[in-house]
Amino acid sequence: MAACQKQLAVEGAEALVLFPSVDMQYLSGFTDEPMERHLFLILGENGEPAFVAPELYESHIEDDSWVDDVRTYGDGDDPLALVEEVADDLDIGEGRLLVDDRMWAQFTLDLRETFPAADFGLASEVIGELRVRKSKAEVDALRRAGVAADAAMADVHDLGSDAVGMTETELAAYIEDRLTVHGGEETSFAPIVGSGPNGAKPHHRHGDREIDVGDPVVLDFGTRIDGYPSDQTRTVVFGGDPPSEFKTVHEVVREAQQAAIETIQPGVPAEAVDTAAREVIADAGYGDAFIHRTGHGLGLEVHEDPYIVSGNDERLQEGMVFSVEPGVYFDGKFGVRIEDIVVVTTDGCERLNDTSRDWRA
Amino acid sequence: MAACQKQLAVEGAEALVLFPSVDMQYLSGFTDEPMERHLFLILGENGEPAFVAPELYESHIEDDSWVDDVRTYGDGDDPLALVEEVADDLDIGEGRLLVDDRMWAQFTLDLRETFPAADFGLASEVIGELRVRKSKAEVDALRRAGVAADAAMADVHDLGSDAVGMTETELAAYIEDRLTVHGGEETSFAPIVGSGPNGAKPHHRHGDREIDVGDPVVLDFGTRIDGYPSDQTRTVVFGGDPPSEFKTVHEVVREAQQAAIETIQPGVPAEAVDTAAREVIADAGYGDAFIHRTGHGLGLEVHEDPYIVSGNDERLQEGMVFSVEPGVYFDGKFGVRIEDIVVVTTDGCERLNDTSRDWRA
Repeated sequence: MAACQKQLAVEGAEALVLFPSVDMQYLSGFTDEPMERHLFLILGENGEPAFVAPELYESHIEDDSWVDDVRTYGDGDDPLALVEEVADDLDIGEGRLLVDDRMWAQFTLDLRETFPAADFGLASEVIGELRVRKSKAEVDALRRAGVAADAAMADVHDLGSDAVGMTETELAAYIEDRLTVHGGEETSFAPIVGSGPNGAKPHHRHGDREIDVGDPVVLDFGTRIDGYPSDQTRTVVFGGDPPSEFKTVHEVVREAQQAAIETIQPGVPAEAVDTAAREVIADAGYGDAFIHRTGHGLGLEVHEDPYIVSGNDERLQEGMVFSVEPGVYFDGKFGVRIEDIVVVTTDGCERLNDTSRDWRA
Repeated sequence: MAACQKQLAVEGAEALVLFPSVDMQYLSGFTDEPMERHLFLILGENGEPAFVAPELYESHIEDDSWVDDVRTYGDGDDPLALVEEVADDLDIGEGRLLVDDRMWAQFTLDLRETFPAADFGLASEVIGELRVRKSKAEVDALRRAGVAADAAMADVHDLGSDAVGMTETELAAYIEDRLTVHGGEETSFAPIVGSGPNGAKPHHRHGDREIDVGDPVVLDFGTRIDGYPSDQTRTVVFGGDPPSEFKTVHEVVREAQQAAIETIQPGVPAEAVDTAAREVIADAGYGDAFIHRTGHGLGLEVHEDPYIVSGNDERLQEGMVFSVEPGVYFDGKFGVRIEDIVVVTTDGCERLNDTSRDWRA
């Protein structure tokens, strides 16, 4: 909160007005789904932050948030009167107001009518800089989420040939169960179980296809702990012999991932990590089959800055957390992807996943 | 679409700019989750509507929508150049532009920079009038969704004292399962199972608390059929004797709900329905414990117009659909809420829920 107020001054803005979002969660500890009622967190350059919230959210906010000043209105009252009251207390409303990037138009329009002299910008101008470098507590939660995903992956490995004959959806349900057993609060996203040709579609989730002997199976999943997610991918064969080219491809993807990881240190442009992975795959002759970026940042959101992609010359900094997940996809045949989450350290990076990367279950 | 263009003329607006939302779904047949990429549907007062969309959504839009003009951009291209191209074709950009009520601030800010001479308003000015009166097909889907929720509620009633000792989360999972068995496609929202003191928090979802003998339990849930949701609440006691004041309170809430429902007919202001419920509860001495509005509209969204709340003098019309859900909450003790969905008819209303309102399971 203090860092945010300092950053407001740097950006020449007088206040943040947040709407239920991950930014609200990040700054206050409280959030909810975006909603049709006015629910704002207002943080001025000086003074204490205040919530303006519907009465029936009062106890939730008090339970979840360290913000003490919660001003509530009842259904039928005018929430904008409360917003004006907070603005008077914080002496804001005529300078630059940064609104939540995801605030609905119905509310930004209200704010423009309430503060006609203000100049409007986006909260990410201030919060983006803060969120991209994770604190020790955040890294700790991300590390524990990684451990839970690793433990679930080890259980999946242990299935061995018992997984042959399961449908993808059955295996996805097993994964969700193991994630819960290992302390996960909720999946980071619906697990991907891409068997055989389905593994060649990077956005496939899971379906009725039965896992066959010799199928490479792409397993991409994660869970949340203390609100922070994990996200890892392994490609395994549960029994029998995989297609002839598979072993080579798997080895190439592993090397590409390793090369990318060895590139990571503070000061390196994000795109250099992508290039390192891409070169290994291109040199092996599979360049056209690596059809997505190498990674994405991970924090309160599963996809956030920094993106590890060609064209992103943003420099890596200590405390950034992102995925390294090269993949090779043969349409109609199979896919291979290996993914770990890493946190940038003073002189390299630490992997937050470390379960076996072997393809044989 | 034609009705919408007519309404644009009536409102003196030159175009709608929609973002992925139920309004986009309602008008075009296509929608998706709100996303960080530019995806707009632009409808001028004259001419054909056009999508501006990321390349990788093209086939999805073509599959789902009857809009023929889909203009796409690749990663690295400027989506606003396409928006300007559509604006030129439709001869818009200097008059009144109505943006999706839920468009994220990052996009409304983009549009303001792209069209500095335009005057901005909200799409609901035009679409709200259309969406608020449900067609026969819409009411039919809402009715079937209500039947599915009622059937699940009857199953929960049948648990009787077997529900004592279950955690709220276990009972929520049972409810989700029964909703699916009775044909529901997906829950309207995460079920609320508020046992004992948790029932006093109207927006509590469910947790690890075990249901105890004598606990009043607030059960608020629904499911979707053909995209349209149900939403009902019952407050029940699964075994033993409830707190002494509970029976009286439950009876008062039931009477309040009945009084509100008897008020409903075309031409009555929405707030009169709220007043009818509130008077019964206030007369019984619980006025301060009825801390929310009496209801909300229901359609493609679970919360939409008309809101049944003090201050809303909008007149009810045939075909409007909304909840009637008075409640009384004693902090730290228990809560009672009873909710049904109704559709306004020529001379009153029809309930879309009709499972038992008795508190004893």
